[in-house]
Amino acid sequence: MGYKAAVVGASGFAGAELVRLLAQHPNFDLVCAVSDSLEGQPLASAYPGLVGAAASEPSIQPIAEMTFSSRSDKALKSADVAFLAVPHTASLNMAPELIESGVSVIDLSADFRLRDSSIYEHYYSTPHTQPELLAGSFFGLPELEREKVAAAHEAHASGRSVLVACAGCYPTASSLAIAPAIRAGLAEPGSTIIVDAISGITGAGRTPTSRTHFCAANNNLSAYGLLEHRHTPEMEQIMGHSGSVLFTPHLAPLDRGILSTVTVPASPKAIAGWSTGRLRSMYAEFYEASPFVRVLEEGEMPQTSAVCGTNNAQVSISFSERTGMLLGICAIDNLCKGAAGQAVQCANIVFGLDEASGLSSCALPV
Amino acid sequence: MGYKAAVVGASGFAGAELVRLLAQHPNFDLVCAVSDSLEGQPLASAYPGLVGAAASEPSIQPIAEMTFSSRSDKALKSADVAFLAVPHTASLNMAPELIESGVSVIDLSADFRLRDSSIYEHYYSTPHTQPELLAGSFFGLPELEREKVAAAHEAHASGRSVLVACAGCYPTASSLAIAPAIRAGLAEPGSTIIVDAISGITGAGRTPTSRTHFCAANNNLSAYGLLEHRHTPEMEQIMGHSGSVLFTPHLAPLDRGILSTVTVPASPKAIAGWSTGRLRSMYAEFYEASPFVRVLEEGEMPQTSAVCGTNNAQVSISFSERTGMLLGICAIDNLCKGAAGQAVQCANIVFGLDEASGLSSCALPV
Amino acid sequence: MGYKAAVVGASGFAGAELVRLLAQHPNFDLVCAVSDSLEGQPLASAYPGLVGAAASEPSIQPIAEMTFSSRSDKALKSADVAFLAVPHTASLNMAPELIESGVSVIDLSADFRLRDSSIYEHYYSTPHTQPELLAGSFFGLPELEREKVAAAHEAHASGRSVLVACAGCYPTASSLAIAPAIRAGLAEPGSTIIVDAISGITGAGRTPTSRTHFCAANNNLSAYGLLEHRHTPEMEQIMGHSGSVLFTPHLAPLDRGILSTVTVPASPKAIAGWSTGRLRSMYAEFYEASPFVRVLEEGEMPQTSAVCGTNNAQVSISFSERTGMLLGICAIDNLCKGAAGQAVQCANIVFGLDEASGLSSCALPV
Amino acid sequence: MGYKAAVVGASGFAGAELVRLLAQHPNFDLVCAVSDSLEGQPLASAYPGLVGAAASEPSIQPIAEMTFSSRSDKALKSADVAFLAVPHTASLNMAPELIESGVSVIDLSADFRLRDSSIYEHYYSTPHTQPELLAGSFFGLPELEREKVAAAHEAHASGRSVLVACAGCYPTASSLAIAPAIRAGLAEPGSTIIVDAISGITGAGRTPTSRTHFCAANNNLSAYGLLEHRHTPEMEQIMGHSGSVLFTPHLAPLDRGILSTVTVPASPKAIAGWSTGRLRSMYAEFYEASPFVRVLEEGEMPQTSAVCGTNNAQVSISFSERTGMLLGICAIDNLCKGAAGQAVQCANIVFGLDEASGLSSCALPV
Repeated sequence: MGYKAAVVGASGFAGAELVRLLAQHPNFDLVCAVSDSLEGQPLASAYPGLVGAAASEPSIQPIAEMTFSSRSDKALKSADVAFLAVPHTASLNMAPELIESGVSVIDLSADFRLRDSSIYEHYYSTPHTQPELLAGSFFGLPELEREKVAAAHEAHASGRSVLVACAGCYPTASSLAIAPAIRAGLAEPGSTIIVDAISGITGAGRTPTSRTHFCAANNNLSAYGLLEHRHTPEMEQIMGHSGSVLFTPHLAPLDRGILSTVTVPASPKAIAGWSTGRLRSMYAEFYEASPFVRVLEEGEMPQTSAVCGTNNAQVSISFSERTGMLLGICAIDNLCKGAAGQAVQCANIVFGLDEASGLSSCALPV
Repeated sequence: MGYKAAVVGASGFAGAELVRLLAQHPNFDLVCAVSDSLEGQPLASAYPGLVGAAASEPSIQPIAEMTFSSRSDKALKSADVAFLAVPHTASLNMAPELIESGVSVIDLSADFRLRDSSIYEHYYSTPHTQPELLAGSFFGLPELEREKVAAAHEAHASGRSVLVACAGCYPTASSLAIAPAIRAGLAEPGSTIIVDAISGITGAGRTPTSRTHFCAANNNLSAYGLLEHRHTPEMEQIMGHSGSVLFTPHLAPLDRGILSTVTVPASPKAIAGWSTGRLRSMYAEFYEASPFVRVLEEGEMPQTSAVCGTNNAQVSISFSERTGMLLGICAIDNLCKGAAGQAVQCANIVFGLDEASGLSSCALPV
Repeated sequence: MGYKAAVVGASGFAGAELVRLLAQHPNFDLVCAVSDSLEGQPLASAYPGLVGAAASEPSIQPIAEMTFSSRSDKALKSADVAFLAVPHTASLNMAPELIESGVSVIDLSADFRLRDSSIYEHYYSTPHTQPELLAGSFFGLPELEREKVAAAHEAHASGRSVLVACAGCYPTASSLAIAPAIRAGLAEPGSTIIVDAISGITGAGRTPTSRTHFCAANNNLSAYGLLEHRHTPEMEQIMGHSGSVLFTPHLAPLDRGILSTVTVPASPKAIAGWSTGRLRSMYAEFYEASPFVRVLEEGEMPQTSAVCGTNNAQVSISFSERTGMLLGICAIDNLCKGAAGQAVQCANIVFGLDEASGLSSCALPV
Repeated sequence: MGYKAAVVGASGFAGAELVRLLAQHPNFDLVCAVSDSLEGQPLASAYPGLVGAAASEPSIQPIAEMTFSSRSDKALKSADVAFLAVPHTASLNMAPELIESGVSVIDLSADFRLRDSSIYEHYYSTPHTQPELLAGSFFGLPELEREKVAAAHEAHASGRSVLVACAGCYPTASSLAIAPAIRAGLAEPGSTIIVDAISGITGAGRTPTSRTHFCAANNNLSAYGLLEHRHTPEMEQIMGHSGSVLFTPHLAPLDRGILSTVTVPASPKAIAGWSTGRLRSMYAEFYEASPFVRVLEEGEMPQTSAVCGTNNAQVSISFSERTGMLLGICAIDNLCKGAAGQAVQCANIVFGLDEASGLSSCALPV
């Protein structure tokens, strides 16, 4: 028998991806899929592609027979772990009771990502009502803060219910691209990191709007959320640079994928003696223990189709001698490594499993 | 240790899909991936998304380290099974020697599909040079001719190397849609079956052409191969109807997927007392032992995204009382159930494995 | 000064296409764009691509400065012609008052298309409240019923306000494909015409739904509206065949375009002596006076991208000797020849202008 | 009678777009469409969507009847103007003879864009064989260097054949976004301008390759040409900044469109007192005489679909006080404003016509 896992917000795109991953996970058994909006409906009506997902155990209900349940579903509170794929503020409301009931929480919302609650309150225009829970929570972007997820595992192993706040999609891609260079002290102190990222339309969520209509999104490239997108402070927190981040997100006509291009001036002194090749080696070493990150060879083209449906990240790093700029690029699947996959990866670590357990590592070839 | 499996034509789309499926298969070990055009190059250069595919056994080379090999690769002749994802006539040339070397062949080409070699010669304008091998070969569309794949298994179990000719993509989708009704005697004898099918662009193959250029295929719907497409006689053979088939294929701007809409006049006498509901029940029973086929409920919309990346088929069947027509619709992934997945399914049966072994049953939810 | 033209339902896709066409039309001046849902908002906020449309006359407001107005906008009743791009029943309500006010009506809704109001009432489940107006109205598919639009012109020239009911998108494409053959007596009497058509997502309308969400429509092919789609009786009316029509619509991931594939058994007696070549010649002659229809040469591939943004139709006709079937295929832009373009074409004829006035005839090359 | 216009390289995407624009232009008559690779073939076979393009004069051959001609076509040398949509070095070879023959040249290649031939030689690894012609040529990006195109007009009016080198697609979009701010002295001297731009697949050219295959480009985002893309020095030349440019191009799955996001540190001193609103006003004034540029209001989302098929540019400018960065974004159609449209715009000016003549200003609404 595996650990009992619940998904809250299962009708959203990240929630559905969690259902896909957990339904096939060898160590977690999906016991309930909560959706306020679709309660009582079969999962298969919203996501017919999931129908084929067999349960990992014969005793577990296969997806084809599951229905979305409500938040009062008893299976939620008796789960070993609950994945919250909910809008911000919803986790603030739900997490405390779950933790108290002995359910560990893997939170995909923004509620517990920012260490400084005043920044949260500024960017989300709402009070942070759980400062203590925040203080005791753990941040989940294992490749960059491995010790934090390890600490969550220690706490969990000692019998505590833990809360892990997983990094957001844009911050994950952007930080994987540039953080190793920053941590190596190569960026000009105080300079601004430019993040220009492109996302597929799943990033805009499942609610149909005039902007997510096929005919608005197809054949279109757009920029949005200029200057003050909410993912900015999260990037600043993860990257740990002494300067600020200017983040501009873009939408392109595909379903899944984020390609983030990150530029920062190198410190002339620190960068002396570095080449793109040496940077690449440093990155490869940095990510050596991270099974999901592949540092590209020079000349390889980072591309999202190569990571679609996987928890993988492609990372490219270059140094432009001509301009003195560091240029990092990262491609991930925003719903997988940028959301559900990262959450399962964190849960794997918390529960002492292989970090890659249940996370297929191979994209469709075409 | 699993059975040793080779893929010939591994640089094509169906070949790459075979690599994906076999690399993760619990019972087959991919020992070589043959490509004339890309020999010596890393698989990852052509299909970077496959890089993450781990070998099923530590003793086996992971995909990330494999290179395309030539037809003279010794691993090919020492394999237990070779999957031939090659153009027509290539199997005619390769299969005899493989069979003689003790390698069972799962053929994805058209060379051994048509029982009557004169029809092959007519449609492919080339002599069929292997009539004896043809006579001893087996046809692979398990859901409709289960006894033939079973016979292949018997032969294999008795120590013979066998050749299974897998059904083509359009014939698979179209036949799954209408064959049960025809076999139940519900179609008007001698009438023409109308097959209008739509395919994604992977169906046009990997070679870049003016027609497969993104800017020609995107935002476009087209019909092609009017009146005499080569898949016509194969459909006629499988469907087993007393009349002919008129098949019109169409291209639409997506990667993977075939949606086939099949219409045939019902025999007024035979159809008496039948409704769409009863047809549906008959289909559900017909496909009861077929784990990959889902017969849709009335009102459900057959769609290819629900089967993308899987070996599944969605089948819908209706009776139009107003017009006296039977209307069957089937959605499959042309590269999986229409090619590589079906080939693995046939190999599973031949080798006495679970029919679904190694074939993931769950599509990405979005 | 041109004729004053109003568009009702201007926020929908067909309405916006009317705005585009009329704003650049040399003989019509767009005087108001009515939208219930967007009243008061700038047209440019809903359709930023229209901003550049200059007014055809300096005295006319350019699009960039126009706002959506309400149905009570005085400009509506003082227009020379009103284009109604509204849902069914809305024209039943609006047309009588407009006609009485001296405004000719070009109706893009379904309300006045079916000559037999009982069929309308059956398919739309609502009473037809305007039988007299229906009796005095004209049907608008000029290529197939040129005399009817001519009669509308006569009536208009004599001082009457006229109502022209334009043919729907699927019926236009499907009828252009097969009607010449049927009118030539080549179809088997009483047989069923099979219409399998594929539409882009604009055909599903502008309202965002879970089905028109980019991530549901992209990478997907689906069938819908099986057996009894409302466009069926309209096809039967236009085609004028002695048998029935079985129509199956499909959705594919592109914005604009309908490709309709139409099959009907030929009468063995009537078809004697006909070949595809002779059929083609007959079609070319049939459409000789129709500037928007191009009959393809044998071997040419009908495709929607070639007609995107134009009022053109590509028509292919073949005879399958092997099966005895006639196979007609037609590609149009569903929003232009299938809706707004056809409406402008009809208005051109009614007002005695060149049929092609204001209708650009050239698609983007790529 | 209009001016006689020839297109060389008419089978490429930019060439075909030139054919579309010129075929409908009121002042130019398309007299020949030269293509080495498709000589003798009908234009309609390569670009069926162009078939409907009527000639602007009855005396002129309509597109449907034109065939691609060779470089030795006499109509080329007797034209008033030749548009060269050819690869680099081809213009070096062709332009001198055309100019000598009295044909003005509008060059879409890279051969005469860079004022400093040594930079050309470095980036294109080929000698610049026409230094004198280069010295006498004019640069064509009217919105930013209006006086240069005006000088070309003066020269032409005085009887000279002139050569105008039109700006490239990426440089056009990127420079329109940021040049006004730079010219206003707002950028930090010596700082690096970061250009992250996204292009549709037409930008990769018409030759089918593994990268432009639908199945490689669809569902994919990629970066390419890192650090030293050839458009870099052209941007540096146009922008006129004292620092360098780091340009990273990306590909996204759409046909037409470039969205360029440009960031540069503001000079703290110069920017004092400026807000996004004031920047916007300055930009609006800067582009006041430029009919094709629309400066977006704050909150408007730059998007390529709004300019598809037009010569328009959408420009957004912001100042990030938090980071001290200027952020300019521009959306254009890479084949129109980024190539063929800009060329026609330049020709219009050279020949003393209205700058917007023949350039439709309205995109499809959806």
